[in-house]
Amino acid sequence: MLIRLGYDIQFDFPCATPMVALLNVHPSRESDLVEPGHVAVSPEIPVTTYLDTFGNRCTRFTAPAGRLRLTSSGLIRDSGQADPINWAARECAVGDVPNEILIYLLNSRYCEVDRFSNIAFDLFGNSPTGWGRVQAICDWVHEKVKFSYGHARPTKTALDVFTERIGVCRDFQHLAITFCRALNIPARYATGYLGDIGVPAGGPMDFSAWFEVYLGDRWWTFDARHNVPRIGRVLMATGRDASDVAITTSFGEANLCHFSVVTEEVGTEEAAHADVAEPAAA
Amino acid sequence: MLIRLGYDIQFDFPCATPMVALLNVHPSRESDLVEPGHVAVSPEIPVTTYLDTFGNRCTRFTAPAGRLRLTSSGLIRDSGQADPINWAARECAVGDVPNEILIYLLNSRYCEVDRFSNIAFDLFGNSPTGWGRVQAICDWVHEKVKFSYGHARPTKTALDVFTERIGVCRDFQHLAITFCRALNIPARYATGYLGDIGVPAGGPMDFSAWFEVYLGDRWWTFDARHNVPRIGRVLMATGRDASDVAITTSFGEANLCHFSVVTEEVGTEEAAHADVAEPAAA
Amino acid sequence: MLIRLGYDIQFDFPCATPMVALLNVHPSRESDLVEPGHVAVSPEIPVTTYLDTFGNRCTRFTAPAGRLRLTSSGLIRDSGQADPINWAARECAVGDVPNEILIYLLNSRYCEVDRFSNIAFDLFGNSPTGWGRVQAICDWVHEKVKFSYGHARPTKTALDVFTERIGVCRDFQHLAITFCRALNIPARYATGYLGDIGVPAGGPMDFSAWFEVYLGDRWWTFDARHNVPRIGRVLMATGRDASDVAITTSFGEANLCHFSVVTEEVGTEEAAHADVAEPAAA
Amino acid sequence: MLIRLGYDIQFDFPCATPMVALLNVHPSRESDLVEPGHVAVSPEIPVTTYLDTFGNRCTRFTAPAGRLRLTSSGLIRDSGQADPINWAARECAVGDVPNEILIYLLNSRYCEVDRFSNIAFDLFGNSPTGWGRVQAICDWVHEKVKFSYGHARPTKTALDVFTERIGVCRDFQHLAITFCRALNIPARYATGYLGDIGVPAGGPMDFSAWFEVYLGDRWWTFDARHNVPRIGRVLMATGRDASDVAITTSFGEANLCHFSVVTEEVGTEEAAHADVAEPAAA
Repeated sequence: MLIRLGYDIQFDFPCATPMVALLNVHPSRESDLVEPGHVAVSPEIPVTTYLDTFGNRCTRFTAPAGRLRLTSSGLIRDSGQADPINWAARECAVGDVPNEILIYLLNSRYCEVDRFSNIAFDLFGNSPTGWGRVQAICDWVHEKVKFSYGHARPTKTALDVFTERIGVCRDFQHLAITFCRALNIPARYATGYLGDIGVPAGGPMDFSAWFEVYLGDRWWTFDARHNVPRIGRVLMATGRDASDVAITTSFGEANLCHFSVVTEEVGTEEAAHADVAEPAAA
Repeated sequence: MLIRLGYDIQFDFPCATPMVALLNVHPSRESDLVEPGHVAVSPEIPVTTYLDTFGNRCTRFTAPAGRLRLTSSGLIRDSGQADPINWAARECAVGDVPNEILIYLLNSRYCEVDRFSNIAFDLFGNSPTGWGRVQAICDWVHEKVKFSYGHARPTKTALDVFTERIGVCRDFQHLAITFCRALNIPARYATGYLGDIGVPAGGPMDFSAWFEVYLGDRWWTFDARHNVPRIGRVLMATGRDASDVAITTSFGEANLCHFSVVTEEVGTEEAAHADVAEPAAA
Repeated sequence: MLIRLGYDIQFDFPCATPMVALLNVHPSRESDLVEPGHVAVSPEIPVTTYLDTFGNRCTRFTAPAGRLRLTSSGLIRDSGQADPINWAARECAVGDVPNEILIYLLNSRYCEVDRFSNIAFDLFGNSPTGWGRVQAICDWVHEKVKFSYGHARPTKTALDVFTERIGVCRDFQHLAITFCRALNIPARYATGYLGDIGVPAGGPMDFSAWFEVYLGDRWWTFDARHNVPRIGRVLMATGRDASDVAITTSFGEANLCHFSVVTEEVGTEEAAHADVAEPAAA
Repeated sequence: MLIRLGYDIQFDFPCATPMVALLNVHPSRESDLVEPGHVAVSPEIPVTTYLDTFGNRCTRFTAPAGRLRLTSSGLIRDSGQADPINWAARECAVGDVPNEILIYLLNSRYCEVDRFSNIAFDLFGNSPTGWGRVQAICDWVHEKVKFSYGHARPTKTALDVFTERIGVCRDFQHLAITFCRALNIPARYATGYLGDIGVPAGGPMDFSAWFEVYLGDRWWTFDARHNVPRIGRVLMATGRDASDVAITTSFGEANLCHFSVVTEEVGTEEAAHADVAEPAAA
């Protein structure tokens, strides 16, 4: 399957403002890119990219005062397979968790693990361990929290989600991640493209948040917001929580004035065209 | 100057419990060690060490049920110089902050930068930038917050410190770090040994927390708790906040039953003895 | 001056639900009513009224399942004078505050006085006392907090307003009230009608929140949201904060489906008509 | 049964400070007083008493700079009966709750009812209603929260208790009260004397907090801290939460320097003596 990816994001900056964008396909998916889809910045300004400590490809620049436009259009090969399910996946004992994954057991800005140990144990302490426990967490969050665009706010933490029971996709994942960590299951936040492939159309195309859980000896995809296996996730970034992997982080005032995302399966004709496109740069 | 370092920390574990300890001298100070002072664990159990993503040397093991004792005794060469002061140190424009240091501008568990932008700007927006601004922050925190052992708690954030105005050393540093980050000055949390060298004795020897600020092109030591240059800090770990660099993190119940620290200047006689000791292992 | 008052508020109730409404003109203004403007409830159901401990006239009923409509239309005589200003009004020493007013110095749900003592003293400790200090508080809140309908939420406290600096009228007043109380100045929350009399039209007519401060030996009106003297406030209720005097409190699910308010000056012709209307019931 | 009551409470005031004390036996128990036990203030200063809006007898004065001592010694007749248990007590439908009791269904400073609706329903929505539901709440709080003098703090709310699961008696009651209100059961905070009558001695004598629940047509005593019927409670005050009925509220700095309480059953000999004492003033 081929998926067309892209966005058109525009900001107004009252003055020159440094910015970091996580708007690239994740390095783990770069080899799938048929058309690379670099970040195009207009007006043309110096842009650098780097890998952060979580392994994400970041784009960095100083936006001049005025309108700034970030666009991209790429094409990626995808397995077309839905998120794998593996009820046999077992928890990795904390003592066996790889060193570099231990941080995904700790507190972070939006995931107050220290305030959730008792709550998580009360709710899920009797669930089977491993995949079943994570699925029980997703079921609970999916059932108890209501989706509402109007209830997003930048300071909302897992505890706020737990008490308010309403929010956007990032809120669902923060709560589920916090439950996992409180039960000593490593979990991290993920962002990327998620289209409507294989499901009824759900409104304008958009980025989405989901989360990953370390079971057995690898990371698995979970999504407490949708809570069904989905086709066509294209990972952009992973981190402890949304604070680490904000789509854009601006160090100063930035007023979003346009935001549109494309992420859709493309048919064979466009595919044929795409196949002759230049290979993706690594 | 030579400083004798060590500790005797004991826990009771109701059952086998994985643990990570940041109880080693920081890699940046290892070459100063005259006697290495490894972590000794009793009873003898398998122990591994690794560097975490912040560059700290971590000790990792699974404590068996019962009493566990962690001890160490080392000797380190120190410049004997107090923390440097450099009023000429200028802020590094965010656009020039090295990639790997950008995370020290972001939110973390105990440092809710997103809730402090306005507060920090109100309080320090008119201070001179650079060293002077950081010093203004330290002066404010030092003056406004009262030290009290009885007012520590694991969930206390910078915002709690700001409203309660009382706490222990970590609380002082969390608030100062958060102010710095909210003003786009990279700041990180530091822990280590800090004795009474050059100051009146201040009670039992202990570890301490301070913080580091990136000004110009390097990190500088600040300490909103003491707010005077001190001699003899021996760094153990740096991270975003206390959640990243807890002295010990246990994944299960751990009851502290003994805690003592040694950190004191030693005279020439002991120094002479120490000089013939084996060189520190890297 | 005569002011036409009224509303049309409709809810859908999934099941029978007890409700309390504070939708009457405050007893202190009842004698000004030319047309009484009782709460009309449709469908017709048993309704009782009572005075709560704060002296507000409450309407109480159990809404049946389905649509419920609350309407009212009244006419009130008003002085046409703007909120009085009295720079000479002095603080009432706490020792002289009447017994029944002491509770307006204490904590309430949205006014965490205990967390604001230091913040308030830092900000306003050097302001002149009395009227000047309250005005300094209003100026600060008015300048620092931005109005935005999109940033209301039921759990938002004064501390949230202080950090987020954005909200609706109730948020402005909660923060100002909390500052006052933290400085030992009695302050209470007020709701009522506030039209655009004497000011540029500001959108749809609505209820509004303001607050009252006890200075000298009486309560005075302040409004940190508008921060200019206004004509035509018609008080409905006062209490500790919005939790005490919610326009409607439902003990179960209630879905607001229509909300409109009328509050406008009426000309002489309608006035002439009104004058022959029956006198208001006490 | 006769119970000797009294206290000796001392403060140091850096400057003259207004204070309100709730240190009198509640009006509902005044007729049981064999010896009245007025509040004695030393040095002698003007003192007034009044009933607050909750019906408590308050003592009010302005403490001069220096040491202030509040003492009392009284004797009260008590039924000697343990707190009544009535499994048949039914919930009062919200629509039938008396007007003046409705406020005990609302938010207060330490009882964030608005944040607990879902949590309470998740935990207790399937419990039988009435007495059984309140008892289920007490059982839960008593089992889940650990008592610890070291974990009191003035800003601790029900939500903090719910996440931290540790605290003092007021914390237990705040959480239980909040659960009740979130389930539409009126609940209020109570303070008073509680000795060790009929139970093993539990340390120094002290005041205690418990709570009252409105079931059927009256208030009943519950105590999530002890969670067993107790003999010899002597009520001093009720209110929404500890903010309303703090033992002492000082409007300025007050440093507690001595605190002792007496509350113990007295034998027949002292009783004989007591019976000839003057009758209690109303």
